[in-house]
Amino acid sequence: MAENLWTTDPREALRAHPGFTLASMDRRATPGWGGDKAQGKAFMDSRASLLSELQERLFAEGRVGGKRSVLVVVQGLDTAGKGGMVRHVMGYVDPQGVSLASFGVPTEEERQHHYLWRIENKLPTPGRIGVFDRSHYEDVLVVRVDELIEESVWSERYDEINEWEKQLVESGTTILKFALMVSHEEQGIRLMERLDRPDKRWKYSTGDLDTRAKWHAFQEAYQAVFDRTSTEHAPWYVLPADRKWFSRLALTEILTRTLVEMEIGWPSVRWSPEVQRRNLAKSMSTASLVESYEDTPAVVTEAMEETLEVRRDSADLLDADPDASEQRIAARRAEWLTDLEETLAHKRELLAARDDAPALTADIPGIGSKTKKAAKSKKSKKGKKKSKK
Amino acid sequence: MAENLWTTDPREALRAHPGFTLASMDRRATPGWGGDKAQGKAFMDSRASLLSELQERLFAEGRVGGKRSVLVVVQGLDTAGKGGMVRHVMGYVDPQGVSLASFGVPTEEERQHHYLWRIENKLPTPGRIGVFDRSHYEDVLVVRVDELIEESVWSERYDEINEWEKQLVESGTTILKFALMVSHEEQGIRLMERLDRPDKRWKYSTGDLDTRAKWHAFQEAYQAVFDRTSTEHAPWYVLPADRKWFSRLALTEILTRTLVEMEIGWPSVRWSPEVQRRNLAKSMSTASLVESYEDTPAVVTEAMEETLEVRRDSADLLDADPDASEQRIAARRAEWLTDLEETLAHKRELLAARDDAPALTADIPGIGSKTKKAAKSKKSKKGKKKSKK
Repeated sequence: MAENLWTTDPREALRAHPGFTLASMDRRATPGWGGDKAQGKAFMDSRASLLSELQERLFAEGRVGGKRSVLVVVQGLDTAGKGGMVRHVMGYVDPQGVSLASFGVPTEEERQHHYLWRIENKLPTPGRIGVFDRSHYEDVLVVRVDELIEESVWSERYDEINEWEKQLVESGTTILKFALMVSHEEQGIRLMERLDRPDKRWKYSTGDLDTRAKWHAFQEAYQAVFDRTSTEHAPWYVLPADRKWFSRLALTEILTRTLVEMEIGWPSVRWSPEVQRRNLAKSMSTASLVESYEDTPAVVTEAMEETLEVRRDSADLLDADPDASEQRIAARRAEWLTDLEETLAHKRELLAARDDAPALTADIPGIGSKTKKAAKSKKSKKGKKKSKK
Repeated sequence: MAENLWTTDPREALRAHPGFTLASMDRRATPGWGGDKAQGKAFMDSRASLLSELQERLFAEGRVGGKRSVLVVVQGLDTAGKGGMVRHVMGYVDPQGVSLASFGVPTEEERQHHYLWRIENKLPTPGRIGVFDRSHYEDVLVVRVDELIEESVWSERYDEINEWEKQLVESGTTILKFALMVSHEEQGIRLMERLDRPDKRWKYSTGDLDTRAKWHAFQEAYQAVFDRTSTEHAPWYVLPADRKWFSRLALTEILTRTLVEMEIGWPSVRWSPEVQRRNLAKSMSTASLVESYEDTPAVVTEAMEETLEVRRDSADLLDADPDASEQRIAARRAEWLTDLEETLAHKRELLAARDDAPALTADIPGIGSKTKKAAKSKKSKKGKKKSKK
């Protein structure tokens, strides 16, 4: 298990509090993290299974009528690492539960609408995580720097955005806003790399230098964004981005902690597993019912261990009283095991009613302790729970 | 390097040729693959870097005006593994280059349009890979089985779909259609698992048993789909799906080989790297220009080795004459090294013009051979080229 070397909650260490000054931020710093790059990567990867399960729970909640969603806004200048960040986050969760949207120069149609129109069209539906590569903030960043519209218009937008985001939060969307702030020096080196690598030249645009020339104006525009739109309901997190591993670690951790605090459980169902199992069994041969029966303990205990591990990680993050949370985990384990005993008893009953059923042992080894299959799977999994999907 | 144990091109082994009979297909078979599960997984993972780079090239091509795209249609009954397959494929490529769409029961709005309307809205734009979880084929599958419309209507659709797909292919979209065919027995076991696992019950719907009861009608409807829509321009690949590792291996390999045969290169650019480099350098400090200069050989040779590895893998797949392809690779390497020499010479020239530049060595160790950094990176990469993104 990788060591948790966060010395301060990154939501605290990286938040744009009132008085935050972008100009004095060290873009190579790693605020809140007490480890090095290798430790950071290892710890980030150790979040994979937690993040993956929380996202699946959110998705499940949305499927049964839940209203909550999460919106991750990623802003930053060229080469800050927005694209890599999006790919990175998507790698930890099921892409089918993510709404990905990228906002470039508005199209003709988009220009004919209010600037929030195209954003609203791409908001995550309940149960989903929306990931925005650029966002409505372009309408107070590039629009302001390039003087695309009058100041009297864009200067009204900060309050309008705050109000709009507030309504979004009230309707169930948790908003996380991340600004990846690369230094002027590092941007130069990264642009040079695009010029030097024949396989990356297609990413370079001659307009990139024009934007770079407006560096200071963009810094001012970002400062204004932080001053005016880092609200209680939708704060900004400003991530130093000269070290990509750190900005990824920080976003991963903030997203994880946010999902943990949402306390998302598995939805309960409105039908009876017993009734459904009996009906399903009617369509199954005795051989496959036996196979299913024999697999049950390993399959269920493996899932139980994963769920309990997520609970334990979550409790750690919530700084819960360790004894109390161990008690809760033990209670949850007992519930799963009772459920499993009922499942097995029910399957034995279904099999007993068949003439061609073989003799079954009443107890299957492994219940209540890790079975061989579950233990093996633990070791090999890397967070993406692909094995049984 | 994992061993390639395909004994037959999977596009040949799995294609629904005329006379293909679904009823006689063994759903646990692994047609064309001469290895076991562990070998299959290892080989599939060894395709990651190739698939990732080919997708990036396709995306790059689309950005500079290319018209080509790829559409991956995934069909199958409940529990066949469609969702897991989509997540699996997305894990190998950059999700930002993928258009993911899932087609469930049509909405009220969709019902008011032609059945292809909602499909057309989700087609991949140039440069993208579209991945469809279910598709327009639902309109000759569930619609036929559940008798939602009259036979005289759905029976016309096969030809209509063929014609529509033909136009799509002609406009630059390569269509790959995959049917994941799970056995009735295995479906029962997988549905039972959803009932047995408290964390998976939300995925189960009481309607699943109604659909299962129509098993034979669905098999007939699929057989009709294969008979009537497995065309030259858009053939069906029928994947036995009782072993998930095999269906994933097969789809990965077919997608990879298809992309290889599209012969997608990196786009050439219309501006001069020298001019851009000179302009960019003006905005850079001497220290960062020196840093960029010193990093250049490692950065460029690492990228070169990756590109050449992709070329080698591609040549193997195309069954090219090994000597001829080695010659072509050597020529490509020479081009890269010449480009690198020019880059370095140019950077030295830019630095020489500065008063505060340190003395530079004319030759940097490592050019033309793997540098330490590149060699190290080779070992650690797992296909996803996250390091420099």
